[in-house]
Order: sequence, then C-alpha cells, then structure tokens
Amino acid sequence: MCARGAGQQVLTIDTMNPTVKKVEYAVRGPIVQRAVQLEKELREGAKKPFAEVIKANIGDAHAMGQQPITFFRQVLALCSYPELLNDSTFPEDAKSRARRILQSCGGSSIGAYSASQGIDCVRQDVARYIEQRDGGIPCDPDNIYLTTGASDGIVTMLKLLVCGEGKSRTGVMISIPQYPLYSAALAELGAVQINYYLNEEKCWSLDISELQRALDEARRHCNPRALCIINPGNPTGQVQSRQCIEDVIRFAAKERLLLMADEVYQDNVYADGCKFHSFKKVLFEMGPEFSNNVELASFHSTSKCYMGECGFRGGYMEIINMDAEVKAQLTKLVSVRLCPPVPGQALMDLVVNCPQPGEPSYNNFMKERTATLGVLAEKAKLTEQILNTVPGISCNPVQGAMYSFPRITIPEKAIREAKEKGQAPDMLYCMKLLEETGICLVPGSGFGQKEGTYHFRMTILPATDKLKILLSKVKEFHQKFTQQYS
Amino acid sequence: MCARGAGQQVLTIDTMNPTVKKVEYAVRGPIVQRAVQLEKELREGAKKPFAEVIKANIGDAHAMGQQPITFFRQVLALCSYPELLNDSTFPEDAKSRARRILQSCGGSSIGAYSASQGIDCVRQDVARYIEQRDGGIPCDPDNIYLTTGASDGIVTMLKLLVCGEGKSRTGVMISIPQYPLYSAALAELGAVQINYYLNEEKCWSLDISELQRALDEARRHCNPRALCIINPGNPTGQVQSRQCIEDVIRFAAKERLLLMADEVYQDNVYADGCKFHSFKKVLFEMGPEFSNNVELASFHSTSKCYMGECGFRGGYMEIINMDAEVKAQLTKLVSVRLCPPVPGQALMDLVVNCPQPGEPSYNNFMKERTATLGVLAEKAKLTEQILNTVPGISCNPVQGAMYSFPRITIPEKAIREAKEKGQAPDMLYCMKLLEETGICLVPGSGFGQKEGTYHFRMTILPATDKLKILLSKVKEFHQKFTQQYS
Repeated sequence: MCARGAGQQVLTIDTMNPTVKKVEYAVRGPIVQRAVQLEKELREGAKKPFAEVIKANIGDAHAMGQQPITFFRQVLALCSYPELLNDSTFPEDAKSRARRILQSCGGSSIGAYSASQGIDCVRQDVARYIEQRDGGIPCDPDNIYLTTGASDGIVTMLKLLVCGEGKSRTGVMISIPQYPLYSAALAELGAVQINYYLNEEKCWSLDISELQRALDEARRHCNPRALCIINPGNPTGQVQSRQCIEDVIRFAAKERLLLMADEVYQDNVYADGCKFHSFKKVLFEMGPEFSNNVELASFHSTSKCYMGECGFRGGYMEIINMDAEVKAQLTKLVSVRLCPPVPGQALMDLVVNCPQPGEPSYNNFMKERTATLGVLAEKAKLTEQILNTVPGISCNPVQGAMYSFPRITIPEKAIREAKEKGQAPDMLYCMKLLEETGICLVPGSGFGQKEGTYHFRMTILPATDKLKILLSKVKEFHQKFTQQYS
Repeated sequence: MCARGAGQQVLTIDTMNPTVKKVEYAVRGPIVQRAVQLEKELREGAKKPFAEVIKANIGDAHAMGQQPITFFRQVLALCSYPELLNDSTFPEDAKSRARRILQSCGGSSIGAYSASQGIDCVRQDVARYIEQRDGGIPCDPDNIYLTTGASDGIVTMLKLLVCGEGKSRTGVMISIPQYPLYSAALAELGAVQINYYLNEEKCWSLDISELQRALDEARRHCNPRALCIINPGNPTGQVQSRQCIEDVIRFAAKERLLLMADEVYQDNVYADGCKFHSFKKVLFEMGPEFSNNVELASFHSTSKCYMGECGFRGGYMEIINMDAEVKAQLTKLVSVRLCPPVPGQALMDLVVNCPQPGEPSYNNFMKERTATLGVLAEKAKLTEQILNTVPGISCNPVQGAMYSFPRITIPEKAIREAKEKGQAPDMLYCMKLLEETGICLVPGSGFGQKEGTYHFRMTILPATDKLKILLSKVKEFHQKFTQQYS
C-alpha cells in the first residue's frame, strides 16, 4: 500500500515511461477486471442477476473445460519426475519421448537452462514437423527459435526491427481487427502502427488494394518495413485462401516488407472449403524469385489448436531469409533472458513429435485430438448460427481459430450515452451485458474496427451446453438493450 | 540460410534497431559459443588437449549434476498428470499441495492461463513466506507479482522507469562488477548505466562514499532514479552486512532513488558471520520515516538457492510503496504477455510452502536441502582456498551466491597482444584457457571491473571432484600463461 502523498514517489504516473502508458490490452482490460471483481462479490455472497460469471473473453481452452491431451501430460510428468520411468502404467512411447528430452537437458533435468535458442533436439523435431506439414520443403533447424509463447517471438522480432525518428520511424502493418498484442507491442516500442482493414462484407478477407492504400498513406509519415498477418485470424476467424497468401507475399516482395505470419491457430480450421496454407509453404512454392528474397518470420504456439496448453508458454518461430548478421544479433538478444521455459519446450516437442500409427498411445491420442477439434468445429458453427438469428447481430462464419467477432447494431441513444461517459459504445454494451448476465466478452474497440461499426469478440470455448446458454442470454440482452435505447 | 546478397534485406545490421546492437550478455557470449563449438568438435571425434568441456560459465546447478528436490518434482508431476493423485506411491503432502494448486487453476489445469499477476493462492503463499522470513513484517499479496524468472521482473521494472531525453534521460545505478542482465537491459532500453564500484580490497563491500561519487558525477549528464543491488552478490559473492543495507536505504531515501534488490541467492550464504538480511525487512525495521517513503522492488527466483530450477523460469517480485497509478500501469503491462509459465508458478509455490515438521516429506526434504546447501558451502571454501594458492590469482571469500570472481594478474605482454587483437586481456586469457583445457569461464570484462584490473567468473557448481580438477587445471594454466608471457 502506498503511504506517500500522491506525487511524492520517484516513480509516478508523470515520471514513468510514457510509452508504457500508451499500451492497452483489451483481452485482459477493464471489462475483465470488472468480471473478476464480480466473481469475487459472488463468492462473498452478493446477490446478482446471474449465478456465475462466464469468461468468454480469452482463448483459454482448459479454463473452459477442454481436457489436455493425455499423452502430453504423461510425458511432462515423466520429465518432471523421472522416477516414473520405472512405473509400468506409463506407455513406452511416452517414456521414450521423455528419455529423449531428458537426455537433451543439462544434467538430464528439465530444471537446467537450455540453449537460448531452445533445446537442440526439439528444434530438430520442429524442423522435421514443418517439413512434413509443408510437403517436404526443407526446414533448417538453425532457423528455429523456441520462444515463451508466440507473443515472445513476435515481440522479439519487432524489437529487432523498430527504429528511426520522425518520418523514418519504423511502421508496421497490422490487420484491423487485430489481436491486441500487436498494438500493445508497437505502442511500447514506439513504432508506427499502420492499419489495414479486413473486409467484413467478404468474410474478413484481405484485399491487396487495401494493403496498398494503407501502405501508400503510411509512407507519407513513416518508414513501413513489416506486415503482420494472423492466419487463421484473431479475432475474426477467417482462414485466408491460398491465393490471398500468394498475393500478400507478392505484395511484400514488391514493397519490400518483412512478413510476420502468426499461425498459432493452424489446426483450428473448421469450415468446408477452408484449408490452412502456411506462409512458408506458399512462399517456397512460388519459386526462388520469392523464396530467396522475402524475409519471413512464422510463429506457432502450444496455447491453441487442440492442445490448449496456454499456461506452459510454449512456442517457436521460424526465420526465413534473415540477414546473417541480424540473426547473430537475434541469437544474442534472446541469450539475455537465458532460455524459454523448458516444460514449454518439452510440450512443443510433443506437439511436433506426437504419437504415430503403430505406437501404443496413437489411438487414444487421435481420439482425443479429433474429439477436441470436432467439438470446436461444432461450436464454431453453433455460434455463427445462433448469433445470426438475432436482429441487429450479424456474424461472419467462424472459419477457424477460437472466436466469433459479430457486428452489433447499437442504437444512437446508446452511442450518445457512451460518448458522454467517454466510453466506446461497444464497451458500454459489453459492460451492461456483464453486469446483467455475468457474461464477459471483449468490445470490438479493443481489437480495432471500421469507424462507426461495433463488434464484440467472444470465444467459442465454453462447453456446448454453457455456450448455448451464453448465446441465448446474449440474444436476450441484445433485444432488451436495443429496446431500452430505442 | 540467407540467399540474398548482403544488404538487400529489409532488415540488415544497418537498418535494425541500434539499441539491440549495444546489448551484450557475457554469460552466454562469444566464449560460450566457442565452448559449444568445441563440444561439437569433440563429439565428432576431434582430438583436443582435453576430454571434455567443463562449463563453469553459468549458474546452472542441475546442468552440473545438482539433484532437484524430490518433493518439488513429485508435486509438479502430480500437477502435470493429475491421474497420479490416485497413485499410492506419492506422499499425501505432495498430493495436497498439488490439489491446492490445481484448484486455483482455470479448469483445474496448469495448462490454463493464470491471472497475469500470478495465481492468487501462490501470491498469498509468497506473502506468507516473506512475512515468516522477515520476522512478521506484513506482506500484502497484492504487492506480489509472479514473474518469468527474476530477469523478467527486473526488466519490467526498468521498463516502467526509463524515460526522458538528453540530460533528463533516466540513469540507473548498478554495482560493478554486475550481473550483465542489468547492463543488457539498460542498453536495450537506452537508459544511462551509472556504475558504482564495489570495494575489492574490502571483500567486495559497498562504500556509501562510492555511491555518492557515482551519483554526483551522473547527475551532471542524466537523471538518476534507481539503484540496483544484488545481495548476495553476483559475480562477487559478497553478503552485505545489515549496516550496509541500512546505509544503502538511507542513501536511497536521501537521494530519492527507487531501490531494486536482487535477492535470488538469499539461501546461498556460506561464510561464518554472514547472514542474509532482506531489504524489505531492514527497510521496515528502520521505521516509518523510511518504510513509508522508500520505493523498493525485491526479486526472487526458483533458479538458484537449493532449488536450481533454472529451466522452469519461476520468480516473483515484491513492490513496496509503489504509486497506485503506476501499479495499475504495471498490472496492465504484465497483462500483455498474459501470464508467467504456470509450472514455474507452481514451483515457486512449493519453495514458499515447503514441507513442514510433521509432514511426511519433511525429513527427506530437509535432508536434500541441507545436503545441497552444505555441498555448495564446501565448494565455496574449496574454491577460495585453492585459487589463493596460485601466485597471481587472488580470490576474495565466496561468502554466498554461486560464483568466485578472482582477480588475475595478466603480464604486460599478454595485455599488449590482447589490445592488438582488439580483445579484452581477460578474454584473451579465458579463450586460451578454454582452448588448452576445455574449461569455460567468463572474463571479468563481461561483468565490469576497475580499469586496469582483470578477473574471471567461475561457478562453484561442478561436482566436487570435477571442481578440484578444474581448479588444478586453472592453477596450472595460470602459471604456464604467466611464464609464456613473461
């Protein structure tokens, strides 16, 4: 507790680093703080119009009841407590993977620091996985950096990139709507955020003409050097077509932009006709004119897909065509933080080196993986369908990822009230939704949206029954809200 | 592999963020890269004057054979794979802690994100631990932030602090010699590093007159706002006296400096007459004139002490007297990275909530803890003793931590050769040591030292037999080197 009079400290709101003040992260922002407060009040016996708070604000699958993959947790237990290697209840394929990981660790312990770039054999396994995923296109393990979640890799790349003053200040292109790690990192680094708008009318697809518009405008006041794309998209859930990915690569090549491809949802693809195409694969299939020239960093994580292992902070990035001297700087930079968490590295190893046909754990692994992804696909469809039955709510198909980002019509009266309160209209909407139903969603203003449009982001992660309840309450609330402000 | 002609990329050594180029981290710097290369060559069958590389460069206890604490690993296994809660071979106290941790996790899974400040019950346990450690002085769990290792907390605090331009640029005082995370973070943030020299002649103690000198000089060209102190010290191993800590607090109060107390080695105290005094405790025992006014951030970690669990990246910081608005900014800043690794948080919980008398695991836990710390104390003494038998090497007592930082006399001829090569003389020394004996130490120039003096840092972590071999080889090398350059 602060006992000094305000302003007497060395470190005050006025004397602190101003770039930190510019940072916002809506996914855990004010609405979530209010949700946590409401949970506390409920626990303390307060009476509310709802029995529980439903946190559909964050892509945390386990928190919403998704089960971990048994095999992964068996191996992690074996790595944590190698005595269990003598336990006959653990399958042999789990034991062999645990032994392999432990042998690669200093002193055969996951408590040792690893190499800063990540455990060698894990990087090799990641490279092999990428080769298999991408139809044999070679992957050099030396281009793989294990990271503390994908966020860590993204921030590290931006740190390497962002520099310059005034009109030379680095600009970074990011899709609107975006996952607010990007805007937060750009704010913290003092980079110029260059917004390119995804096309809501065309299922959140990307128009090259819009990229061009955003870039040309940005060139008047900064030095654009990178383009970030999230595919499958967060919060929008679109899965970009192969053609689109080619066009983006062509654009990046022509305009000399470093490409950052956030692909953490690569296994979360639900809609018929949609398929995940890695930027790496498409780049190389476009031939040497592109594959020798476009700088690409691709990011993956253990937090999403079918694993949902957010708390382990596992991730990697693959760096393509990075200047050798810059790569040495990158290697040096990551060495300062020593290494990513080793349990997360071990988990990533299991993701890329999962049970194969013939192995004892294969059937159960496939069963769990298929069930998890299948349930997500059902919930994606369910969410879209139900939201689209609500007058004033319009939801694009949730093609992939874990979220729905429906557009909501907010009555003029509510917009005015919000503005009087100094609040974004969709924040007013979401706050009322929270207070009246206990449902925590994140207002679209936290992700960015076309001026004059409003959205919210909800996850599709609650268990199906709870999701149905959530959706029906949202529907009820929307109708009531619309009426109340008519 | 980079196929473009040099300089054709978007991101090159000339167009990258220049502050990243200024970052150095000697603990994993060029000498370690060479050591890794030599290991590779040995594996490939190359003939060397040594059979193995001994990495005494980094404070990684498990890598050098120290065993993890059984109880901790049992609980981690239970948390990873809760099926094991049905396994009768696990003790009940391990199970009850695992259940408590799991109940605090979303969906009862350590794969869920935690609150960004850290799991609630862990923060409460940390607060309780601090109260017990500090003789009952209250600790508010809300002042506890769990972090990804101590490094993460340190960098976060510096991020909040560093701002300003020119003569207003934030200056941060750091001991020379220092742990190079500090210089690296200050370089990356573009802060002014203000060196205060520890007194080698007085066992690396801290003179307030030296602090004053450094501060007064710094005030001419920057805005000094914080003072960092590592106690027990890295690389120097000194354990500051209580009087010294009081004097530093008084100095910080008078000069209006935010104090950052890096206390990750708090259990690593070996020398008779030395005792760990936490800055928090001393601050509060100095009464409200100080305890209401000095801003203090204290850091701890799971990487050192008797745990040695570096790979888990567990840590916490306690924030005292932080302005409430700044604290809200801190909370917001840490939310962007979602949360520290949950396994590391679980581990920290076990450190602060370890087996108590009467619990089933208590005896074995104490046995392991006592043995580990006892062996470190022996090796600290051994290292000091043996190094002091070498003409031209002078080693202060290793009072605590995990390192020895002896002063080495380097002949003029070698100094000249080094300078011709553009190398620090102690780097030349350490490189030759590495090439001739396979022993990897870190030159003192990587930590900072008084002009004209040379040192190396070695860990005391290799197993006793290996340590004796290492020390005898260093002795032999030093004599040979001195002769060779006479």
